[in-house]
Amino acid sequence: MDFNEKTATKAVLDSFSSIKNDRLKFVMNSIVTHLHEVIKEVEPTDEEWLQAIMFLTNTGQKCDDRRQEFILLSDVLGISMLVDSINNRKSKNETETTVLGPFHTTSPKVNMGDNIANNVNGEKCIVSGKVVDINNNPIAKATIEVWQSGPDGLYDVQKEGHTVDLRGTMSSLENGSYFFRTVKPQYYPIPIDGPVGKVLNSLERHPFRPAHIHFMVKAEGYENLVTHVFIEGDKYLESDTVFAVKKSLIRKLEQGNDPENGEKCFYLNFDIVMEKII
Amino acid sequence: MDFNEKTATKAVLDSFSSIKNDRLKFVMNSIVTHLHEVIKEVEPTDEEWLQAIMFLTNTGQKCDDRRQEFILLSDVLGISMLVDSINNRKSKNETETTVLGPFHTTSPKVNMGDNIANNVNGEKCIVSGKVVDINNNPIAKATIEVWQSGPDGLYDVQKEGHTVDLRGTMSSLENGSYFFRTVKPQYYPIPIDGPVGKVLNSLERHPFRPAHIHFMVKAEGYENLVTHVFIEGDKYLESDTVFAVKKSLIRKLEQGNDPENGEKCFYLNFDIVMEKII
Repeated sequence: MDFNEKTATKAVLDSFSSIKNDRLKFVMNSIVTHLHEVIKEVEPTDEEWLQAIMFLTNTGQKCDDRRQEFILLSDVLGISMLVDSINNRKSKNETETTVLGPFHTTSPKVNMGDNIANNVNGEKCIVSGKVVDINNNPIAKATIEVWQSGPDGLYDVQKEGHTVDLRGTMSSLENGSYFFRTVKPQYYPIPIDGPVGKVLNSLERHPFRPAHIHFMVKAEGYENLVTHVFIEGDKYLESDTVFAVKKSLIRKLEQGNDPENGEKCFYLNFDIVMEKII
Repeated sequence: MDFNEKTATKAVLDSFSSIKNDRLKFVMNSIVTHLHEVIKEVEPTDEEWLQAIMFLTNTGQKCDDRRQEFILLSDVLGISMLVDSINNRKSKNETETTVLGPFHTTSPKVNMGDNIANNVNGEKCIVSGKVVDINNNPIAKATIEVWQSGPDGLYDVQKEGHTVDLRGTMSSLENGSYFFRTVKPQYYPIPIDGPVGKVLNSLERHPFRPAHIHFMVKAEGYENLVTHVFIEGDKYLESDTVFAVKKSLIRKLEQGNDPENGEKCFYLNFDIVMEKII
């Protein structure tokens, strides 16, 4: 049987007939069938095909220890969030999930009330809340990991010769509560100096993410939770370039004073509802 | 509107609404729609998704001046040949096309009858034929570029500190004919020391291509032609790992003697039918 437009997909699927791993075979069949569909729909010229090859090559070559350009690509095409949605179907009132993002690294242990913003200047903010189960029972000793960008829109790892900053890991108290001091998060662009940035630009899309703080919460007997808290009123809430906003994760910043020194500061409250492992 | 499994694809397509270039918008819509379909069908775990990210990253990082791992990936998934088929729909009896492959580079000018195999030992072979139009009229001064691997299955560029070998460019004579001396081509594996080789292995597929010689033929007023000639009887004709075999491109090796020195040699005849540019 000659290879041609009509026989192409079957020919490739047939070449998978010896695969013993059913899952692998299923995945490869799906990928090849849909990639061939794209080619048949788009009918790329040789030049367009080569452009795609070079884009993928450059995207791979932009990756290093501190930069993952393919995750960024997955993010801006809504694929990361789709995978996240599929793997975290909400059953009750548990806190919704959103993407991990590329800036998670290990963070220092901090105590209740500690300030995690040590190397940046910004508007002070106290973040607090409690960790509960779906029936509002407090969860003690939950591990709460937080990380965020500074007022300049950069995470610590994005700076040359970086010092760990704007990240910390704490434990919830007996009544499930937690709180820490930091600076008000700020909207920021994803890295645009690589192939994905160029694509966003040619797609006439801005590179911004609305202000947020990342949370990763773990408690024995409960599903791990990866999420963000977003700030009400941010101009990019409706057009997050990585599609990660969910209404249930938006909170209002309240104005107040720090009880410790009376200084003006914002308050951000974010309760976390964990789902039991069944 | 919250991002979820149902709204995901529309959300991303909506983000393309400002694209002014209609072709780009069409291509991006097709790519995103089908990639999302794959995700919805496959429902990858976070680990599987990360495996895919790392595979793409490693594939990009394997590429350099002499190695194009993404083209190899496109080849083994039948995508290169599908693009080739779409861009070279055969209308009459013109010679069918097949993939360029990753080993094309500029080649030295050779004269009629020259030997292009200078640094390898192999079974001698005289390749000849004529370049004609679809009505069998000879095409003079067509530029015929040929390249092939040696008896060790390697192209010159695959060897450390390589010398140009097994490639040449000649012109057809007034009667359209051409001929050159070389060694009999041999089946060979595509490079398997990279991410694509690992994938082929896990797909229980062999990495071999049946023996062939590449041709790129150009003549004024005719469509450029990129093709191979394959050798009848080769054990990999039915399972070329890049899906590039077409029955019309298979030729029989005849046994004979070189008229110049009487030595035993093979004969391979391959006429080339060019399509006029309309």
